[in-house]
Amino acid sequence: MAVLFERTAIVGVGLIGGSLALAGRRAGLLRSVVGFGRRAENLARAKELGIVDETSGRLSDVASANLVVLAVPVLAMERVARDLVPHLSAGVVVTDVGSVKRPIVDLMDRLLDHERAFVGAHPIAGSERTGAAAADADLFRGAVCVTTPTANTDAAALERVEALWRGVGASVERMGPDAHDRALAWTSHLPHVLAYVLAEAVAAGDSHLLRLAGPSLRDATRVALSSPEIWSEIFLANRDAVSAAILTMRERLESLRAVIDGGDEQQIMRRLEAGRAARKRLEKEKKG
Amino acid sequence: MAVLFERTAIVGVGLIGGSLALAGRRAGLLRSVVGFGRRAENLARAKELGIVDETSGRLSDVASANLVVLAVPVLAMERVARDLVPHLSAGVVVTDVGSVKRPIVDLMDRLLDHERAFVGAHPIAGSERTGAAAADADLFRGAVCVTTPTANTDAAALERVEALWRGVGASVERMGPDAHDRALAWTSHLPHVLAYVLAEAVAAGDSHLLRLAGPSLRDATRVALSSPEIWSEIFLANRDAVSAAILTMRERLESLRAVIDGGDEQQIMRRLEAGRAARKRLEKEKKG
Repeated sequence: MAVLFERTAIVGVGLIGGSLALAGRRAGLLRSVVGFGRRAENLARAKELGIVDETSGRLSDVASANLVVLAVPVLAMERVARDLVPHLSAGVVVTDVGSVKRPIVDLMDRLLDHERAFVGAHPIAGSERTGAAAADADLFRGAVCVTTPTANTDAAALERVEALWRGVGASVERMGPDAHDRALAWTSHLPHVLAYVLAEAVAAGDSHLLRLAGPSLRDATRVALSSPEIWSEIFLANRDAVSAAILTMRERLESLRAVIDGGDEQQIMRRLEAGRAARKRLEKEKKG
Repeated sequence: MAVLFERTAIVGVGLIGGSLALAGRRAGLLRSVVGFGRRAENLARAKELGIVDETSGRLSDVASANLVVLAVPVLAMERVARDLVPHLSAGVVVTDVGSVKRPIVDLMDRLLDHERAFVGAHPIAGSERTGAAAADADLFRGAVCVTTPTANTDAAALERVEALWRGVGASVERMGPDAHDRALAWTSHLPHVLAYVLAEAVAAGDSHLLRLAGPSLRDATRVALSSPEIWSEIFLANRDAVSAAILTMRERLESLRAVIDGGDEQQIMRRLEAGRAARKRLEKEKKG
C-alpha cells in the first residue's frame, strides 16, 4: 500500500498507540514514527521493541509530523491537546483513539483552525494489558474502528484516517460523537462497571467465595484486571451515559429478581431466552 | 488406582454426568457404567462415544448399581429421586452433581434409610455446552468439588465419593448445603444473571450496539449462551440466595453510580482498585 503519512507522532505509546505504530508501519502506511510520552522508561522500551523510530519528551517536536495520534488516557487528552496545538504545522492531521468522543471532538473543534484537521476515532480493541510492551501489530485485525466526524471535519483528512484504520485490519463505522458515547456506555463501559462491582462484591463475602469461583465468575470479572486509572477517567468522561446504563441495568436486574421471586419458571425462562438470543446475534455480528 | 465402584449408574448423561463417567473409568475408579436417561438419542450417542458401557431407559435397572450418580437438571432431581429410590439395593451409594444443594440433601435425607447412603456433591466445572457429546475426561482437572455432608451422612460413603472426585482431578471442599448455596449464588448464579440481563439489555438498544461489541461485552455475556432451561431451574431452586445476591449487586451498582455522578475521580478509582485487587486474589486462589 502507498504511504499515507510520512511522519507520524504517537503521543502516548501504550497498548493502542504502540499497536497502531507497529501495524501501520508493517502495512507500509506510516513511514517514520516518533513516540512522545512522559515516562522515559516506556519510550525507551518502545524504541527497543522497534515500535517507534525515535522518541521525544518535548511536544514542540510534533511540528514535523503530518499525522499526530493522541493516545493518552481520556482525562489527559485536554491538557495534552492544549500543549500540542501551538506546535502543529499547517496541513497536519490530528486524530485520537479515545474511548469517549464528545469532549475531545468539541475541544479540537474549538482549538484547531482550518489548516489543522481533527478526526475523532476509537478503535474498539484492547485488553487489560497496558504499556508499550503490550503492543501487538494484529490488535486491530477484525475490530471495528468508529470515526466521529462533525460538520467541521475535513473530508480528505477523514478519508486518510479511515484508510489507515482499514489498512491495519479494522472495519470503519462512522457515527456522531454522542451516538458513539451512548453506545459504548453499553458495549464497553457498563461491562467494565459490572466486572469491577462483581469482583468487589464477591471479595466482600466470606473467605470461601474466591476459592469456589468457577469459569463464569472468572469470565465475568476478567476486565476488572484493567487499569483503575484509565477506567475511572472513562467513566467520568462519559458520566451521563454510563450513569444511565447502570440505571437501566439495575432496573432490568430488579425485574428479573421479581420474576425469580415470583417463582414462575416459564417467565424466568423467557427472560433468559431473550438474553441468549441476543448473545447469539452478537456472535453472528462478529463473524458476519 | 483401585476400583472404587464396580457398577455405576449415571442418571443423565450430559456434560457433567458424561465427563464423570469418562474420567472415572480412565482413572480406573469406576468399572462398568450404565447410562440412564429419557432421550434415547443422547444415550445412543453416549454409548457410541464410549462414555458408558450400557444404557437403559428403565430406572428399575439401578438395582444392580453400587454407585448412583444423579446428574439431571436441578428441578428434575426430586421426581427422578422419588422414582429411583424403591429400586435401590442395600449398600448403594447415591450422589448428585447439582448446582443447588439444600433441596436435594433434604429430600434424600427423608427418602433413604441407613442402608442406602447419600452424599451431596457439586463439581464446579462446566461450560455453556450440553449433552453427552460435550463430555470431556479432563473437565474436572483443577476444579473444586464441594461435598455437603450433614449429620446423617455415612462417613464411609462420603470418603468414597470424595476419593472419586479427587481421582478425576478435582480438589474437594466440604461445607454445609446452605453455605454452599449462598456461596454459589455469588460465584456462579449471579454471574449468569448478569450475563443474561446484560445481553438482553444491549440487544434492546439500537441496532448499532451489537456491531460495536468489544471483547469486554463478549466476555461478560458468554455464559448467556447457556441453557435457559437449566438456569431458570437453578435460579428457582436457589431463589432466596440468588434474589439476595441480585439485591446486593444492585445496591453496589447504585453506590458506584452515585460516586460516578459525584465526579470525584479518586473515589471512583478507590472502588475500581478494590475490584481489581479482588480479581487478582481470584487468579491467585486458582493457581494456589
